[in-house]
Amino acid sequence: MSDEPLSVGMLGYRFMGEAHSNALARLPMFFPEAPATERDVLIGRDEEALSEAADRLGFDRVSTDWESVVDEVDVFYNLGPNNLHADPSIAALEADTHVFCEKPLAHTLADAERMRDAARESDATAGVAFNYRFIPAIQYAKNLIDAGELGEIHHVRGQYLQDWLVDPTAPWSWRNSAEVAGSGALGDLGAHTIDLTKFLVGDRAGDITRLSGQLQTFVDERPVAGGGEGSLESGGGESAETREVTVDDAYTAQAEFENGAIATYEASRFATGCKNDHTVEINGSNGSLKFSLERLNELELLLEGDRGFQTINVTEADDPYIDRWWPAGHIIGWEHTFVHENYEFLSAAAAGEAHAPDFEDGYRVQELLAAIEESDEHGEWVAV
Amino acid sequence: MSDEPLSVGMLGYRFMGEAHSNALARLPMFFPEAPATERDVLIGRDEEALSEAADRLGFDRVSTDWESVVDEVDVFYNLGPNNLHADPSIAALEADTHVFCEKPLAHTLADAERMRDAARESDATAGVAFNYRFIPAIQYAKNLIDAGELGEIHHVRGQYLQDWLVDPTAPWSWRNSAEVAGSGALGDLGAHTIDLTKFLVGDRAGDITRLSGQLQTFVDERPVAGGGEGSLESGGGESAETREVTVDDAYTAQAEFENGAIATYEASRFATGCKNDHTVEINGSNGSLKFSLERLNELELLLEGDRGFQTINVTEADDPYIDRWWPAGHIIGWEHTFVHENYEFLSAAAAGEAHAPDFEDGYRVQELLAAIEESDEHGEWVAV
Amino acid sequence: MSDEPLSVGMLGYRFMGEAHSNALARLPMFFPEAPATERDVLIGRDEEALSEAADRLGFDRVSTDWESVVDEVDVFYNLGPNNLHADPSIAALEADTHVFCEKPLAHTLADAERMRDAARESDATAGVAFNYRFIPAIQYAKNLIDAGELGEIHHVRGQYLQDWLVDPTAPWSWRNSAEVAGSGALGDLGAHTIDLTKFLVGDRAGDITRLSGQLQTFVDERPVAGGGEGSLESGGGESAETREVTVDDAYTAQAEFENGAIATYEASRFATGCKNDHTVEINGSNGSLKFSLERLNELELLLEGDRGFQTINVTEADDPYIDRWWPAGHIIGWEHTFVHENYEFLSAAAAGEAHAPDFEDGYRVQELLAAIEESDEHGEWVAV
Amino acid sequence: MSDEPLSVGMLGYRFMGEAHSNALARLPMFFPEAPATERDVLIGRDEEALSEAADRLGFDRVSTDWESVVDEVDVFYNLGPNNLHADPSIAALEADTHVFCEKPLAHTLADAERMRDAARESDATAGVAFNYRFIPAIQYAKNLIDAGELGEIHHVRGQYLQDWLVDPTAPWSWRNSAEVAGSGALGDLGAHTIDLTKFLVGDRAGDITRLSGQLQTFVDERPVAGGGEGSLESGGGESAETREVTVDDAYTAQAEFENGAIATYEASRFATGCKNDHTVEINGSNGSLKFSLERLNELELLLEGDRGFQTINVTEADDPYIDRWWPAGHIIGWEHTFVHENYEFLSAAAAGEAHAPDFEDGYRVQELLAAIEESDEHGEWVAV
Repeated sequence: MSDEPLSVGMLGYRFMGEAHSNALARLPMFFPEAPATERDVLIGRDEEALSEAADRLGFDRVSTDWESVVDEVDVFYNLGPNNLHADPSIAALEADTHVFCEKPLAHTLADAERMRDAARESDATAGVAFNYRFIPAIQYAKNLIDAGELGEIHHVRGQYLQDWLVDPTAPWSWRNSAEVAGSGALGDLGAHTIDLTKFLVGDRAGDITRLSGQLQTFVDERPVAGGGEGSLESGGGESAETREVTVDDAYTAQAEFENGAIATYEASRFATGCKNDHTVEINGSNGSLKFSLERLNELELLLEGDRGFQTINVTEADDPYIDRWWPAGHIIGWEHTFVHENYEFLSAAAAGEAHAPDFEDGYRVQELLAAIEESDEHGEWVAV
Repeated sequence: MSDEPLSVGMLGYRFMGEAHSNALARLPMFFPEAPATERDVLIGRDEEALSEAADRLGFDRVSTDWESVVDEVDVFYNLGPNNLHADPSIAALEADTHVFCEKPLAHTLADAERMRDAARESDATAGVAFNYRFIPAIQYAKNLIDAGELGEIHHVRGQYLQDWLVDPTAPWSWRNSAEVAGSGALGDLGAHTIDLTKFLVGDRAGDITRLSGQLQTFVDERPVAGGGEGSLESGGGESAETREVTVDDAYTAQAEFENGAIATYEASRFATGCKNDHTVEINGSNGSLKFSLERLNELELLLEGDRGFQTINVTEADDPYIDRWWPAGHIIGWEHTFVHENYEFLSAAAAGEAHAPDFEDGYRVQELLAAIEESDEHGEWVAV
Repeated sequence: MSDEPLSVGMLGYRFMGEAHSNALARLPMFFPEAPATERDVLIGRDEEALSEAADRLGFDRVSTDWESVVDEVDVFYNLGPNNLHADPSIAALEADTHVFCEKPLAHTLADAERMRDAARESDATAGVAFNYRFIPAIQYAKNLIDAGELGEIHHVRGQYLQDWLVDPTAPWSWRNSAEVAGSGALGDLGAHTIDLTKFLVGDRAGDITRLSGQLQTFVDERPVAGGGEGSLESGGGESAETREVTVDDAYTAQAEFENGAIATYEASRFATGCKNDHTVEINGSNGSLKFSLERLNELELLLEGDRGFQTINVTEADDPYIDRWWPAGHIIGWEHTFVHENYEFLSAAAAGEAHAPDFEDGYRVQELLAAIEESDEHGEWVAV
Repeated sequence: MSDEPLSVGMLGYRFMGEAHSNALARLPMFFPEAPATERDVLIGRDEEALSEAADRLGFDRVSTDWESVVDEVDVFYNLGPNNLHADPSIAALEADTHVFCEKPLAHTLADAERMRDAARESDATAGVAFNYRFIPAIQYAKNLIDAGELGEIHHVRGQYLQDWLVDPTAPWSWRNSAEVAGSGALGDLGAHTIDLTKFLVGDRAGDITRLSGQLQTFVDERPVAGGGEGSLESGGGESAETREVTVDDAYTAQAEFENGAIATYEASRFATGCKNDHTVEINGSNGSLKFSLERLNELELLLEGDRGFQTINVTEADDPYIDRWWPAGHIIGWEHTFVHENYEFLSAAAAGEAHAPDFEDGYRVQELLAAIEESDEHGEWVAV
């Protein structure tokens, strides 16, 4: 581990690019022991947008050719559309460049498998950016569950509700394309929920052993927005007036864990009134908890001896990561989850260690997403 | 329709007997136009407990023989264990005695079918006591949905969470017996949820067309309580030390409606910290709502133009049934749902009209319960 | 204590008359050991409305002359406008008739004093109907506070917010008349809040020692409704087009208790969106609680060792009064508070014992109401 | 307005120093049009701690002598204890250095007056850091109120509840000293609440015209922590075992606005279970709102035609400042209020314009704080 800052190449410069760049920029002030980084090169297709973004996000240079870049940097952030996850990430790993890849790991199970195999072969650190694991309230919950405070796990519920597609005139984007995104609400939102619940209860309840799933597309085609953005992130640019929606708008699933716990899952982009309502509930023999992403500083918790759920503001100095921030009750935001996960990922990479969640974890989530699709197609429960 | 009060025979005198007797006693003061009733005969097995109950609940006499009673009264309330629903109800209907039967309609689909057929044949009114339809907030929601205020229905969620069996030493009761109860959380709680969601969205979303279900029993045998209560309602009295649990402790299901709406269902007696947490959520293209039985005076509602869910206290004078009770904000309780449904049922019976929900509705719910069990058994989606 | 039922005379037959009549009607089924009562005579001014009400509320006869009645009955319920509290109640007490009087005790401190003195002189039981003391969640809270679970009391907050007068065209009623009602929001709502907080913390924090108050009337005159209702309860009937509002629409106050705890109080009939929002919050050195009347089955409670407020459904079998009603989570309503207080009052009366709260308690609340008015008038803190 | 970055001198490097430094560091990425700044010099007393902080917070150099610095920089941030607000700020303003001063403006009204006068004389921009004005939900509420959506304002309620001093063994700090802090909960917390409510309703309801206040100190002396921190911010270092608490632990107040609206205020450091619970409620003739700092992304809002309060997630792209951050439902944190206020302050300073709130606003809040203390002392209402 040298004193040189880790040079960063980042593919993607919109929503996720901004979130990760901000995280990198904030580490020195709040996690001064984190490995130093240098935002070296920002990668995309639209040179003009790319330059503007590089300037604002603090990158030294830009590139429209990921192939030439992935072996020039120490760390490669893959924040592109899902169908661009595999090849650049694999190329980077083959060059022993650390890779931090957005979720879901890939747009197909086959690609996810290739990525997992590449990570196994590489000496570099490969992480998948399931950022919600790094919410203080979630880490606090995980510690309680692992310590047995909830007892035997009986029930898991995970929902991720949004409403940005309920308007049938909302424009088509790459997120509506099976070819680019793999799936819709399932992969975009469900991947988060499935990873998060596995993270929380996996050590107590074991793996998911069987599941049954249902996908639904409420609006079959959507208008294509005017000019097309032409970037890697929009995947657009077509001039046709409407374009087919080839992914799900919503999914539901039910599952059983090794220990007999049963779970329900759901995500939608059609849940009118819900903006980013990602909730997890867990019932154990000794206690229960509820979490909502829109109130991510809070945890509703019921432990042995309690008569009702405590609404806990998980912002005390001894709560996970909170000593880095503000006094109790001074809440943190959604973006802080990126600071925490980047701190962990970069620390692991600099130390030559594995990051959790790694590509193996990403692959296992992908397996479950694929099983949900299979169950929907064949009308059968699927053993995993 | 004569001026004579309707004479009532009631089978069952514990929880449900008290709830219905209270409803009958309160009608004259709050629904003075309701048909007058006379609490004539209370029916059960344990004569001593029966006499004490008759005295307290205001019945003139008792009987341990339902067969001799069902044709002596104008209205027969069947509040016994599920396996006692069919024969007495059918006998009553054959005698053209009106029947108000607790839910689920029966412990088997075959019995439910016999009951439905008997109701079709009879001139009497046959009602099934899905009391949650008669919550003001639910009626208010139903009116909004029917008026199209929520638009096209996309999502339905129904959960009924309790925790009274999470303690493995909680004693065995007839509710744990497949022979007596038919099923566990599924029939006891799920029947309510399925009926309630069908009631709310059925006219907009159509029927459930396919579903997939999962049942789970977490504790396989339970201790038998000492003396055995010997009543129709406890079904107990056995001296064995433990007894097998032959029903589900919890179920989950997912379903699709005719219009493409997708639904998730769940009920449990193992949801630690939840006492009577029956919730329904509906998302439509123009609006959404959330309801919780533990806050039954409230409705969370989002309509076109709203930026967030309104938390509405559905206790204004022009809300359903509320003009009979108290000024705005003076909340009603769980038992009021029985007053409302008894008002409706007795009014229908006295007028020789059908009551909604009738045995046809009860049968359709039973079909769905059976389909959930079938799906669980065969590991397949079931078309309904 | 004889076996004869206690004969009841009741002055007032609208809102409060209905609430108390319902309570009397429900006692036999749910509190069978309560003294039996006979609803003997209903008292009012408008014979026609009175007869209709007597019929519906189950009274044997009516009277328009309270003076001739108060010594004919065993128990006299005084539910009339505040300025009718003193004379009939005193006459009844002088005849050793038990008196249950609605709050506030009187419309002036002088009348309250006369009533207190009459109660001291009488052998009969004199109770004031502060029904919110008899909410299970409140009794549960009181027990916790008395047991020291909240430690030393530091803060008390009490608010009672309604909005039924925010519309300036809402009609004038006796509640807007100083002559009839004494005060407005202060006496109608503030009396409840002040009694409730005294009840909860009085044994730990002592009496209120000084206070400062503020009254405000937002709308100075109001239209008089058409025909005038002519009853004792409306006090109306005038034909003038508008009539002056001579009471407060809202008040605020701050106070100090003997132990140094500080309090804020407020009530309003102008709090848009609030229907019956009566809240109490208490902070002690070891714990805190919050209560809201619109969710009267719940208590938010934080005790030593808790990280957040528990939202408790105070509906378990061992919660105060709950064993009489339904299983956990099956909520009770506002009217149940009347059943509980009538049970307590009648039990005390039949046993020849005092009821808490008695006229002494009613007088002390009246003293504080008067002190708030005095502080507002003179712009000074008032020592009590 | 030159192209040179504005050089910043900052007095204070702990809680507030970190919050403002973070804000400065984040502006380029999220508010790229904000004036560029250079974190030039960090000012304090403890050289070692100062150097460590300067390094982490990104300052080029340190100084222990504010007098030599205030005229070397373009902008002076005064984040020191309250008794250090006046002299350095005045010196800076006299040198036409822009000043951004933490609240309350001063520890005495006399100092606040001197500061206000210095600001009037200076060509530089003088701002007081009432950061809660810059919460998106608050700005959104302010816009609604100004547009008349709430109608005539009737009620204002403001509370700021914390519990970090409820433990009597919590150590003494400068915040417990009248000499350094001026007052306790009143100045530290109440200043926020009073400014925030004035900001929200001032343009509709006018100024506060009279008020009555109450201060309470629950614990009279506190242990002095071991070594003493010796910094400007701790004010400590004494070796005595305990030290007298010369400020209030809590205050309450009630007030009247020009238009007749009435208000209640409260703050405490003894509200067990409350971490940073700053709430504001406003009732107008047409609508109402509620806000809580612990859920600062949300606003509870009831407008004409609504039946209940909408719980609004004020995180849509067209909400104030939100277009700079994340998609709807991806919440921001407490620290974002500093980014917003620094953006506004620096923009005003660079343009040679006034910043709102300015020292005039700070002075007016100080007047009200002083009036509350005066009312408490003399037991009288105070006209303002």
